[in-house]
Amino acid sequence: MLTLDKIYHAKYVLKDVIRQTDLIFAPQIRKDAEVYLKTENLQITGSFKVRGSAYKISQLNEEERARGVVACSAGNHAQGVAMAATKSGIPSLICLPDGAPISKVEATKRYGAKVELVKGVYDDAYARALQLKDEKGYTFIHPFDDEDVIAGQGTIGLEILEQLDDVDAVVVPIGGGGLISGVAYAIKCLRPQCKVYGVQAAGAASMVHALQEQGPDALPSAKTIADGIAVKKAGELTYQLCRDYVDEVVTVTDDEISTAILTLIEQQKLIAEGAGAVAVAAVLFDKVPVAGKKVVCLVSGGNIDVTILSRVISRGLLKTGRSADITVELVDKPGQLRGVSDIVAAAGGNVVAVNHDRTDLDTDINACYLRLMLETRDHAHVEQIRTALTEAGYKIIK
Amino acid sequence: MLTLDKIYHAKYVLKDVIRQTDLIFAPQIRKDAEVYLKTENLQITGSFKVRGSAYKISQLNEEERARGVVACSAGNHAQGVAMAATKSGIPSLICLPDGAPISKVEATKRYGAKVELVKGVYDDAYARALQLKDEKGYTFIHPFDDEDVIAGQGTIGLEILEQLDDVDAVVVPIGGGGLISGVAYAIKCLRPQCKVYGVQAAGAASMVHALQEQGPDALPSAKTIADGIAVKKAGELTYQLCRDYVDEVVTVTDDEISTAILTLIEQQKLIAEGAGAVAVAAVLFDKVPVAGKKVVCLVSGGNIDVTILSRVISRGLLKTGRSADITVELVDKPGQLRGVSDIVAAAGGNVVAVNHDRTDLDTDINACYLRLMLETRDHAHVEQIRTALTEAGYKIIK
Repeated sequence: MLTLDKIYHAKYVLKDVIRQTDLIFAPQIRKDAEVYLKTENLQITGSFKVRGSAYKISQLNEEERARGVVACSAGNHAQGVAMAATKSGIPSLICLPDGAPISKVEATKRYGAKVELVKGVYDDAYARALQLKDEKGYTFIHPFDDEDVIAGQGTIGLEILEQLDDVDAVVVPIGGGGLISGVAYAIKCLRPQCKVYGVQAAGAASMVHALQEQGPDALPSAKTIADGIAVKKAGELTYQLCRDYVDEVVTVTDDEISTAILTLIEQQKLIAEGAGAVAVAAVLFDKVPVAGKKVVCLVSGGNIDVTILSRVISRGLLKTGRSADITVELVDKPGQLRGVSDIVAAAGGNVVAVNHDRTDLDTDINACYLRLMLETRDHAHVEQIRTALTEAGYKIIK
Repeated sequence: MLTLDKIYHAKYVLKDVIRQTDLIFAPQIRKDAEVYLKTENLQITGSFKVRGSAYKISQLNEEERARGVVACSAGNHAQGVAMAATKSGIPSLICLPDGAPISKVEATKRYGAKVELVKGVYDDAYARALQLKDEKGYTFIHPFDDEDVIAGQGTIGLEILEQLDDVDAVVVPIGGGGLISGVAYAIKCLRPQCKVYGVQAAGAASMVHALQEQGPDALPSAKTIADGIAVKKAGELTYQLCRDYVDEVVTVTDDEISTAILTLIEQQKLIAEGAGAVAVAAVLFDKVPVAGKKVVCLVSGGNIDVTILSRVISRGLLKTGRSADITVELVDKPGQLRGVSDIVAAAGGNVVAVNHDRTDLDTDINACYLRLMLETRDHAHVEQIRTALTEAGYKIIK
């Protein structure tokens, strides 16, 4: 059974393994609430996951330590297990689906784990890990549905109460539910009046589903940019703890998550991965009742691929009017391109890329499309450029 | 005269104004040194500048407070002065060149300052600020060449010694020299055996120049992506303090700065602006002798425009082989595009954008260029795709 004792013990054990991450006041997130960020993205390995794995590993007996551990994950859990096992001098093997990004494979190896690439998808890698557990006697480190793992994550709850003792609400991401189970348990034991809200990606709302159906049950799919919490089925143990200790579980969309990632970059100078940004998204988009409260958003991790990050930023720039994608129909005669360039330049738009296409079937035989990617100041600026083009007689296609 | 007393006094005064920023262990930056980051990018206003401004403002007498303060800056200093003045209930006016980005103007206003847009460039705005000082009796807050401002920045030196008392070396960005003057003075007073290294952008090496010429003297230009330290002329006071207390000043290139920004994002989940990343760049690219040492890199700020950030990331992806830009010459006959697509797909490259151009003058009359933007894993992967295309008989142009 999970006890507060166990979480305090985890805190003691983890003292020299993990960092006590900073709690950062973030007044710009919301004017009507006192918002703080618990920055587990700045944890070693870039995610809270190392807490649970390290505590779990610390509780193994001599024989289990000698045999080693096995886990299955393409992400933060893999790195957490690898780091924790290596620090304790225990061999670790991580099963990854063979399509996993090279960067994740390399990161896991860098922390000292052996990696076995398993043909197929996550479920195949998971089956292989369980097979290895049975065949070789390795201890399987579950990513969330394990009491010791949950106790390790719960140390974040203790830290939050130390860092902000009169906190009114804590908002926590949910994938399988290990993180929120530990945090909610610790907080409700010590400060029951503090609300604990869970946040899932709308495309992977497995805990919402479990709470509605009164038990975990697999979703047909789990699709979200927040890959760290794309979990099809909540845990048994985590379901029970969420049912008993969590006040409410809400969902956020991928667009809301992207906006939260961009907000954290611009206002807080912090990189969060999708899963790490859902608590901030929930507070930004009013999914949880925090007005007038002291609220902590748990930023659970920062391991986002820079390619994805680059896409999130590009999309965010378009959505906030700081870049624009304008297509103009030109009559195919000399001077047209220059005419458009002059108008854009006069309006202060900065041309980043141009695509000039004469062969589009939808255009008039004498016309062509000019597509412009521009750096702009804001939506008003984009509108000003569009108006100037229209007034000069150019037809804007989109 | 600058004294340690003054810096300790600044620390006392700033206690409830600024945050004591975290010192974060960053083992991935270099294997052969113990590297720590002093995260002033996580300071309120996103930069260390608020320390100096706030201490300067705290030292004004009643009459000066009533009249208010004026400053000139398009960046962190503006926001620091605005925030510090507003917190003390003092009116502030910031002169900005009229071409300053809307986002900076808005940020400065948000912190409670009045903004005057001055026709022209930075020097014009500076002249206008001095004129207002004389006409209206405002106190001019210099961005660096002021003893109180330097004392405020020096509080970072005290914090570093508290957070890592056996530090061997501290690496600090230099623009005008205010930050390093305060930090070096504090550190050399308390722990003279600790080295203090300064870092400038190669395109704006005003302090290097001043040390060579034995006095500050304006550079003809200051051009770097690290706009926060693009200063043409070092200060008089800061020159003297650097001469007396700084061990060495080195320079880093814009490419080195970009790599440091990307490294901080990927490995540390932190956003640094160009100026904020130069100390890390110096340690990454071996500009300062830190092997075997405990070294602190001062990450001075994180206020980077996301448009620039997006460009830095794109460039970094290309440079590290995680994206590729390949142009192939095709004979202009059916099936060629599909042939290339098949090869790229088989090699695991993900096509992001395609440009197909039949009209380039340099090509054979029957040929055309196909430009592909790909997501790739690493340089080896890019090479593999290029080889596969060449072996299939396609001519790669670049």
